Amino acid sequence: MASALRFEIVARDSGTAARAGLLHTAHGTVETPVFMPVGTAGSVKGMTQEHLEELDVQILLGNTYHLYLRPGHQLIRAAGGLHRFMSWPRAILTDSGGFQVMSLKGLGRVTEEGFEFRSHLDGSAHTLTPEKAVEIQLALAPDIMMILDECVPYPASHEQVQRGVRQTARWARRGRDAYLSAAADFEAGWNGHAPPPQPAQYGIVQGGIDAALRRESAEGMTEIGFEGYAVGGLSVGEAKNATYDAAELTAQLLPEDQPRYLMGVGTPLDLAEGVARGIDQFDCVMPTRNARNASVFTREGRLVIKSARYARDEAPLDSACGCFVCRRYSRAYIRHLFATGEMLAGTLATFHNLYFYLDTMRKIRQAIRAGEFCSFLSGMRAAHAAL
Amino acid sequence: MASALRFEIVARDSGTAARAGLLHTAHGTVETPVFMPVGTAGSVKGMTQEHLEELDVQILLGNTYHLYLRPGHQLIRAAGGLHRFMSWPRAILTDSGGFQVMSLKGLGRVTEEGFEFRSHLDGSAHTLTPEKAVEIQLALAPDIMMILDECVPYPASHEQVQRGVRQTARWARRGRDAYLSAAADFEAGWNGHAPPPQPAQYGIVQGGIDAALRRESAEGMTEIGFEGYAVGGLSVGEAKNATYDAAELTAQLLPEDQPRYLMGVGTPLDLAEGVARGIDQFDCVMPTRNARNASVFTREGRLVIKSARYARDEAPLDSACGCFVCRRYSRAYIRHLFATGEMLAGTLATFHNLYFYLDTMRKIRQAIRAGEFCSFLSGMRAAHAAL
Repeated sequence: MASALRFEIVARDSGTAARAGLLHTAHGTVETPVFMPVGTAGSVKGMTQEHLEELDVQILLGNTYHLYLRPGHQLIRAAGGLHRFMSWPRAILTDSGGFQVMSLKGLGRVTEEGFEFRSHLDGSAHTLTPEKAVEIQLALAPDIMMILDECVPYPASHEQVQRGVRQTARWARRGRDAYLSAAADFEAGWNGHAPPPQPAQYGIVQGGIDAALRRESAEGMTEIGFEGYAVGGLSVGEAKNATYDAAELTAQLLPEDQPRYLMGVGTPLDLAEGVARGIDQFDCVMPTRNARNASVFTREGRLVIKSARYARDEAPLDSACGCFVCRRYSRAYIRHLFATGEMLAGTLATFHNLYFYLDTMRKIRQAIRAGEFCSFLSGMRAAHAAL
Repeated sequence: MASALRFEIVARDSGTAARAGLLHTAHGTVETPVFMPVGTAGSVKGMTQEHLEELDVQILLGNTYHLYLRPGHQLIRAAGGLHRFMSWPRAILTDSGGFQVMSLKGLGRVTEEGFEFRSHLDGSAHTLTPEKAVEIQLALAPDIMMILDECVPYPASHEQVQRGVRQTARWARRGRDAYLSAAADFEAGWNGHAPPPQPAQYGIVQGGIDAALRRESAEGMTEIGFEGYAVGGLSVGEAKNATYDAAELTAQLLPEDQPRYLMGVGTPLDLAEGVARGIDQFDCVMPTRNARNASVFTREGRLVIKSARYARDEAPLDSACGCFVCRRYSRAYIRHLFATGEMLAGTLATFHNLYFYLDTMRKIRQAIRAGEFCSFLSGMRAAHAAL
C-alpha cells in the first residue's frame, strides 16, 4: 500500500510533550492536535454534513462494526467507499470494530483466530479476524484504518492484561500482513467509480496501566511498523491519573515523528492533558451522546438543559460561545425542545457540544504555536477545579 | 386591535379564480398563494430555523393546543411571544387549538361554553372557550390567529353539520368580541420585552359539503368581519371533488380583497386545485409527517425511500430537484439512514419534501403572474394522472 498520509510537526511546547502538527491526507490537511467526532453508522447523530463543515470538522471517525452490519462494507465499496457513500469530502478514520464487538455483553468471545460474535440486530453469527478487519476497512476506504486489537477492561489481572498485549501483537502482525498484501488488488472493482486513495494503517498499543506491558506492546508495534500509533485500552474504568500516566508513558515509547491517537478519551480537560503528554488525535462519544441526553458543555461547567430551572432562562447555552446555536437560541427554547422530545433538541445541543470541543482544540493548537500552552493548560485545570 | 396585516392582490388568472398576492405582516411580506409548514410545538420537526430560512419559508403555522400544554402560553408571553421564543423572525399563524382537541379520541367534548378536554400528556382537565383561544393566542402573539371553531367530521348528518355551523357562528362572535376588547391591554406585561405587533384574526367557515350551510356560515363570518377567512371542515374524509367543490363555493362567498386560507389541505395537486378556486393560504402536515415516515415527494411520484430497492441507488431523491439534499446525498445513503434509525434521515427527507412543496407554490405564483396558470395546472393534473 502507498497511503497519502504524511505527518508534519510545526510547533513544540517547551514545557510539555505537546506538539502542533499537520496531518496531510488525500482528503485534506488535518490540523493536530485534533478531536474526531464519532459518525457511528455514517452519520454524526443529529448533524448534517453541512453542519460538520460549518464546524470545520477536518476528520471524522466511522465505526466498522456498525457499517459492516448495516449497510454492509460491500455495499459501501460498490458506492465508491465511505466518503462517497456519505458525501463527506474530508478525512475519515475507521476503527477496527473490535472494541464494539467486545462491548456486546454476552454476545462475543475472543479466540486466537479473532472475535466470534453475534449481531446485536439479528443474532447472526460472525467472526472478526485481523484479516477481516482489514478487508472491511479497505472496502470502506477511510484515510486511516486501525488494526484489530484486544482491549482489556479495568480492573484486570496482570495475566489478563499480558494476554491482551500478546494477542494484540499477534493480530497486529497478521493485520499488517493482510494490509500490505492487499495493495495489489486495492484499485480493482470499485463498481465504475474511481478507486479511492489507499488508506494508512495505525497500530494500537495495549497494556492497561502496567508500564512494562505498555513497553512490550509499544516495542512490538513499532517493530512491525505502522503509519501511526494509537494508545488503546484506556478510559475503561481506571482513575484519571492512571490514564494520563499510561498515555504519557506510551507516547514516549512511540516514534517522535509519527501521529499518536488516544482512543475514546475524553472530557475537554482530558484532551488538554493528553495533548500535554504528546497525543495528536482523540475521539469520544461524549460531546454527541451527552448532547442527546441534554447535557451541554459550557465554560461554566456542564448544564443539564432539560431541567426546569432553565424553563424561563433567556440566556444562550454559553454566553461566551460563538456557535450558531448560542447566537440564536435561548436555554428556555432548548429546554422546551427537550421537554417535548423535538428532534431539534438533539441537533442544537450536539452542534453546540461539538463546537465546544473543536473550539477547545483550536485554542490548544493556537496556544502551542504561540508558545503559551503551559499557561493555557494551567487555566483549564484551574477552571475545571473551580467548577 | 390594529394589526399590521394588509393583503394586496398583484395578479389574477383569467381562466380560474387563482390570484397572486402579497400578505404584508409585521414580520415580513408573504407571497401568496403560500404553503405554511407546520411547526407544531415551536419547531418544524427535524428542521433548524436556519433550514427554514434556507427554504425561504415566509410563514409558519404553530399549534396552540401543543404550545398551551408545553411550555404554556404564559411562559411564551414572558419570553416576548412565539417569534422571540423560537427565534423565528418571519410571519407565524396559529390555529385555535380546537381541531387538535377534537382529535383527542375520547378525551374531549363540545359544550356551548367551549371544548372540555383532558390533556393527552397527563390527563389534566381543561376548557378551551372562544375567549380562552383568544387569550392563549394573544400571549403567543402570532401575526395571524384563528377563531375557535367546531370542525365536524365526515360523514355527518345534516343536523350535525348545521349544529357545527351555528356553534361556530356563536363562538366566532364571542371570539371576535374577546379579540377586540383585548386591544387596550395587549401592550402591557411583556416581561420587559417590547410588545410584539398586534395579531390579525381570521374567521372560519364550516358547513361540510353542504352548499346552503356553507353559505350560511360564510355570511355569518363576513357579517362579523375578520382580517381574513379560512375554509375549515374539509379534508376530513370526503371525496376529493367534494373538497374542491366546497372550497370553490366558499371562496366565492368570501370578500374578494381579503386572504382565504384552506385548512389542512393537502397534496401538491390539492394545493394547485385550491389555488384555481381562489385560495391564498394552505397548511398540511403531509410533507413533514410523510418525510419522517420515509415517504418523499418527487416529480415521478412518491418514493418510500426505506425500501430495499434503493439500497444501491446512487441517484438523488429527485434528479430534477435543486435542494441541498438532492445536490449532495444519494437515495442509497438516505435509505441507509432510515434503515438504521439515524436522526439525519428525517431531517434530509423533511427538507426535501418542504422544498418540493414550496417550489411547487413558487411555480404556481410565477405561472399566475405570467398568465400561464391554466396550462401549469393542466400539466400538474396530467403528471398526477400518469403516476
